[in-house]
Amino acid sequence: MPGALLTDLYELNMAASYLRRGMDGLATFSLYVRGLPKQRGFLVAVGLEACLDFLETVSFDDDDLAYLSSVGFDDRALEDFRGLRFDGEVWAVPEGRIVYSEEPILEVTAPVAVGQLVETYLLNQITLHTTLATKAARYVIAADGHDLVDFAFRRTHGTEAAMAVARASAMVGFAATSNVEAARRYGLTVAGTMAHAFIEAFPSERQAFRAFAEDHPERTTFLVDTYDTLNGVRNAIETIRQLDLADHLGVRLDSGDLDSLARGARELLDAAGLTDARIFASGGLDELEVDELVRAGAPVDAFGIGTQMGVSADAPYVDSVYKLTEYDGEPKLKLSSDKATAPGRKQVWRSGDGDLLTLREEPGPDGAEAMLAPVMRDGRRLAPSPSLDESRERFRADLAGVPTKARRLTHPEHVVVPHSAALRELTVTTRAEAMRRSAGGA
Amino acid sequence: MPGALLTDLYELNMAASYLRRGMDGLATFSLYVRGLPKQRGFLVAVGLEACLDFLETVSFDDDDLAYLSSVGFDDRALEDFRGLRFDGEVWAVPEGRIVYSEEPILEVTAPVAVGQLVETYLLNQITLHTTLATKAARYVIAADGHDLVDFAFRRTHGTEAAMAVARASAMVGFAATSNVEAARRYGLTVAGTMAHAFIEAFPSERQAFRAFAEDHPERTTFLVDTYDTLNGVRNAIETIRQLDLADHLGVRLDSGDLDSLARGARELLDAAGLTDARIFASGGLDELEVDELVRAGAPVDAFGIGTQMGVSADAPYVDSVYKLTEYDGEPKLKLSSDKATAPGRKQVWRSGDGDLLTLREEPGPDGAEAMLAPVMRDGRRLAPSPSLDESRERFRADLAGVPTKARRLTHPEHVVVPHSAALRELTVTTRAEAMRRSAGGA
Repeated sequence: MPGALLTDLYELNMAASYLRRGMDGLATFSLYVRGLPKQRGFLVAVGLEACLDFLETVSFDDDDLAYLSSVGFDDRALEDFRGLRFDGEVWAVPEGRIVYSEEPILEVTAPVAVGQLVETYLLNQITLHTTLATKAARYVIAADGHDLVDFAFRRTHGTEAAMAVARASAMVGFAATSNVEAARRYGLTVAGTMAHAFIEAFPSERQAFRAFAEDHPERTTFLVDTYDTLNGVRNAIETIRQLDLADHLGVRLDSGDLDSLARGARELLDAAGLTDARIFASGGLDELEVDELVRAGAPVDAFGIGTQMGVSADAPYVDSVYKLTEYDGEPKLKLSSDKATAPGRKQVWRSGDGDLLTLREEPGPDGAEAMLAPVMRDGRRLAPSPSLDESRERFRADLAGVPTKARRLTHPEHVVVPHSAALRELTVTTRAEAMRRSAGGA
Repeated sequence: MPGALLTDLYELNMAASYLRRGMDGLATFSLYVRGLPKQRGFLVAVGLEACLDFLETVSFDDDDLAYLSSVGFDDRALEDFRGLRFDGEVWAVPEGRIVYSEEPILEVTAPVAVGQLVETYLLNQITLHTTLATKAARYVIAADGHDLVDFAFRRTHGTEAAMAVARASAMVGFAATSNVEAARRYGLTVAGTMAHAFIEAFPSERQAFRAFAEDHPERTTFLVDTYDTLNGVRNAIETIRQLDLADHLGVRLDSGDLDSLARGARELLDAAGLTDARIFASGGLDELEVDELVRAGAPVDAFGIGTQMGVSADAPYVDSVYKLTEYDGEPKLKLSSDKATAPGRKQVWRSGDGDLLTLREEPGPDGAEAMLAPVMRDGRRLAPSPSLDESRERFRADLAGVPTKARRLTHPEHVVVPHSAALRELTVTTRAEAMRRSAGGA
């Protein structure tokens, strides 16, 4: 799909005006998150790969132009749109890195019409992936080394979001996903066992367990809560014994008081000599419940995580924006209300002393690492995409550097990133210019 | 895409076991929402069309089977999957109708393996569309006849969710969408004007307004809050006068105190004789803010609604389930915890006295309307899809019948739908049978 209609109408209106008027000056748009949700001390930047895929291919085909004609674009606009490609430059933070509010995740520099046209899609994708990756990262913190499995597919906002949560959760350290298509597409470990319906389709739980274990001896985890959980554990133990199954097979608890049921299940399994059998817990868990179970020492080996992660239930979006910060060599900002932006092309420098936001051409502090790098020029990627493993390593390294107060799951402190002197000065002069224009202007 | 891998691994495990064991008994699965979010007194059932599209085409291709082989499915399982199609029956509530908790939105009756395989996709789609349509309906109630426009694309969970929110919001009465691709795909009215970046790309706000209005005289709404909102209104008035534009063109307020700014803008417009000029308000509005502006009599003619609707921010999912309620002629239910289900194939009867949940073959109360109807048999649709207009009419008619207490935007009362005597009796006997099995069984 050429994809140029995956946008808001106003982007097309504006682009048509720019093109008609020969306004082909380079514009820089900065995509960042304005302020974090209350329970987020940091963000995991993800979504860049989807954006680059789009930018490499977006265009208008004849059907697109015919549709635009039908809603009022004139021939001049259609001719200007025909043949339009994204031929700009992108600087970005690599996927998996941790960022804070107001730090650019990506900056696009392109002729203003095309830079404007792609706004909607870029915002949509960065917001989707970053929101989900950030939520998944909270589970990784809560699980404290215990295995996590993505079970979210059934309640995500569509199949595209299901693919995104499988990928994003793998990037921050989830061990597996239940989503078969996502596992294939991204090379993830796929996991899953049985549902309550399977148990109910057999005359008894024991018969269901036996049938399933005969058919899938390697991937059986007995779902034990269809009727009575601890009785289910006893039936699982009996099945393992009768079929002489591997000792590491385990049980899944999907309802009830997971702490107490896990302890009860552990006792029964240990008493049967199945000390290697694993206990799997699921059932609408949010990250605070995982944290509580882990801290309480509940003998849970792995957690299946569904809806609460799949929609980032407590904070289903982030306040992402795509702001014009430079046009035709002049820095820009929007004055109104309290949503002021920082003008110009920018860079974020990270060091042991924290982050610093500067203008792009400024040198960084000694020993600091530049977070944004050029990833696309003339509309083409500059390098192959990093692997999921590379992104996961970046995430791990960055997470280790997040201040403890910002890492907290509840009431995290928000990191305020200082601006360099040059950026502060440019903000003052750009604001003065904007106020001059506000007063009526030419 | 054949789509059979758009599922959770456990569905494939279970299906493989059923097929291998010759368990081809008909199973009925009931898809419903277990309990409503606190701030939801009703749901708008949407998502059926996506489900039927999927059921008509889902299958395994060679690549799918090769992948499944690589993750451990044996040749027997692959042979059983090859050629599998959805050949079952679906009864469903038409899109746009209002339902309450525990009322089936759709019921699938099919050989158990294939009925199980499609669970993940059906849940995903009904949950997505129903969650978004229900949220959009709350805006329609709040707007009380004022126009609403979908602006959500940039922050939905992906482009699929953006299409879903455009369609669902149109179904409940939104006047237009900014999403160009959705407008094309679903035949919606597309709307949009300019962004702040456009204003900033010109030497002055007035020059930007003039340029835009020259290029798009029919679809100009002046975005007035880039610098100073009321000054922006004055610049808009001047532009309308200078270019002799239509009097119905208007202004958009996107930040600040919308009530007071709308009154200020109205005064300026009226004083200039532009009494037909429209005032458009946007900027992260939730339905309670819309309600407040409308009740306060703020002179806003139309609202642009974005993120809060696009992710259903206060309740981003519903507790949807897909439960086995009958297998091979026997009613089924799951006992564990407090999540008991009602067994058997069911019908919902709606009348002036409210709804009644019955077994499907029971006669309904006098004059009551059956909510579920057969929509697919032998895997084929029984009738063409209803148009969006038909679904919108259904929604309007149903909304008029929702009890006032359930319609309230805050603290709605939850409608508890009574069960017929026959259904209550079947629940008791099925539960007794499940408890017998729980005790150890055969």
